[in-house]
Amino acid sequence: MHQPTLFITTGDPAGVGPEVSVKAVALLAGSVPARLVLVGNRFILERATQWTGIRLRFVDYQADEASRQPEGAAALLDLQVPEESSCVPGRLDPACGAAAYAYLAEAVQRCLAGEGAGVVTAPLNKAALNAAGYHFAGHTEALASLCGVRDVAMLLVSPSLRVSHVSTHCSLAEAISRVRSERIETVTKLTAQALTDMGVRQPRLAIAGLNPHAGEGGLFGDEEERHIRPAVTRLQQAGYDVTGPEPPDSVFLRAVRGAFDAVVAMYHDQGHIPVKLLGFNEGVNVTLGLPIVRTSVDHGTAFDIAGTGTADPGSMVAAIRLAAQMAGSRAVND
Amino acid sequence: MHQPTLFITTGDPAGVGPEVSVKAVALLAGSVPARLVLVGNRFILERATQWTGIRLRFVDYQADEASRQPEGAAALLDLQVPEESSCVPGRLDPACGAAAYAYLAEAVQRCLAGEGAGVVTAPLNKAALNAAGYHFAGHTEALASLCGVRDVAMLLVSPSLRVSHVSTHCSLAEAISRVRSERIETVTKLTAQALTDMGVRQPRLAIAGLNPHAGEGGLFGDEEERHIRPAVTRLQQAGYDVTGPEPPDSVFLRAVRGAFDAVVAMYHDQGHIPVKLLGFNEGVNVTLGLPIVRTSVDHGTAFDIAGTGTADPGSMVAAIRLAAQMAGSRAVND
Repeated sequence: MHQPTLFITTGDPAGVGPEVSVKAVALLAGSVPARLVLVGNRFILERATQWTGIRLRFVDYQADEASRQPEGAAALLDLQVPEESSCVPGRLDPACGAAAYAYLAEAVQRCLAGEGAGVVTAPLNKAALNAAGYHFAGHTEALASLCGVRDVAMLLVSPSLRVSHVSTHCSLAEAISRVRSERIETVTKLTAQALTDMGVRQPRLAIAGLNPHAGEGGLFGDEEERHIRPAVTRLQQAGYDVTGPEPPDSVFLRAVRGAFDAVVAMYHDQGHIPVKLLGFNEGVNVTLGLPIVRTSVDHGTAFDIAGTGTADPGSMVAAIRLAAQMAGSRAVND
Repeated sequence: MHQPTLFITTGDPAGVGPEVSVKAVALLAGSVPARLVLVGNRFILERATQWTGIRLRFVDYQADEASRQPEGAAALLDLQVPEESSCVPGRLDPACGAAAYAYLAEAVQRCLAGEGAGVVTAPLNKAALNAAGYHFAGHTEALASLCGVRDVAMLLVSPSLRVSHVSTHCSLAEAISRVRSERIETVTKLTAQALTDMGVRQPRLAIAGLNPHAGEGGLFGDEEERHIRPAVTRLQQAGYDVTGPEPPDSVFLRAVRGAFDAVVAMYHDQGHIPVKLLGFNEGVNVTLGLPIVRTSVDHGTAFDIAGTGTADPGSMVAAIRLAAQMAGSRAVND
């Protein structure tokens, strides 16, 4: 059976991305139903294997070869950037930001051309990215641009809770203005599709309120009645199993206890606070609305421990597993 | 040694307040350094002992008597409201709202007159309270009015996390407009004092940001630079151990892991989401800024299980213990 190809972009070369990427690929070799291809720089990845003490050879990636690598080897798409001298662990460098962007752009282009099913991304450094001239609020925004789509959304997946977001990287005041029926419906539908791809049949979704106690009947804000409830009604009419607007301060506990398969959060911190509290080390960030699968680690470049070989690959392992599952499910349904 | 007196207002008679109150008093008899006085209605509390299967006699409260009750007995301030016929478990009744308010008002007046150190409150029902003509967003607002103060704040205490709030019962849009230096300083100072009363020496406090990533250097909102950072600076200059503005989506995990003794949250759900996720059954709500001690259960009237005797008294037990500790500490420092 043909296995989907996943490109693993190894992130900012000065951060922990290369280390968690090689650790995760070594740990997962042969155990996920996907062909894993590292995208980065051979020198940096070989250095990372030395730091982490793992044994892993790199074999040049060929698009048309068999999907199995020799044992102890990983496929590598070597883009030969940045220069070796630019790669000081923990040092912010525009050349590293440019390289991280190049890995991402190359992986996405190959997926869009049909060569791969998706990308799994190690962390990039936003300051380095911006210093290199790529002005994106984050990975998600860069991916939307590379794929030429607008309606993307962030889904966080931890072992006990899944949360998608109506908005993410904007001020809280701006986030309030983005709570609109159409957007809520779009994000909810994308969330339901993603959960189906993850093997959840007939996903049960809770849509959070925006205000305390979901507005307490209009006493604390009217966004629930004006924007959220109409979206819930239309989604229910369209056959989705959704409830809401639910009081934000109890809906996440109810989801953890099994009442819902996912929660649609109205803004970044409403969803990020509970997920990070529950599952920091195994969290996965999934971008919804792209034409390709995309999962990511849920941590940053951790410049303070880069080069020590101690970075925890848990989130990268979980991100690769989840991407493989979603890519397999999409392939079956194609 | 003289023990402080705490009034336990038994809340809406149609809810679980009477049940958790009698359970908690029976469980704690003799084990907390305070004289516990139930405020309510004899008929309702006797009924609650039958439902819960506990043995507890009620002795009329006398302000000037010795602080110890006979074994198996609890002091009761019987206000003889509401009428017996108004007390159907789980049925919303304005007479019950009026009675719950009467218990609270009586307890507060006696504390302000020097008869008691504080109140521990069972839940009231906001709809019943409003139907009875008392128009308050919640218990906290009613207490501020009864005590004639303005600058109150809500502190939630769970076994692993303490969080105070710059604002609580207002829309999220309104909450943003309340993020101002003066208010942040007031709430932080009240929080530091409360923690000292709870036995924490030199409390280490984190002040959360308002926006995602605490604004990411002004990229996602400017409230951090305009209002929060100036407050942090002035508090540090005044000798408080505070840091901030901290990214909201990681500060609570850092506090749980021991980096801070409490977090100052910028709005209701920023603080309530993590606390409820971590310690729903043992959470305590503390009102800061009153001239008296006030703690409360962190749950509602639970009309759906009122009268079954099954309500968990964990939060009420924790609320009484914490009030006794704070009252004892304040008495020592007087």
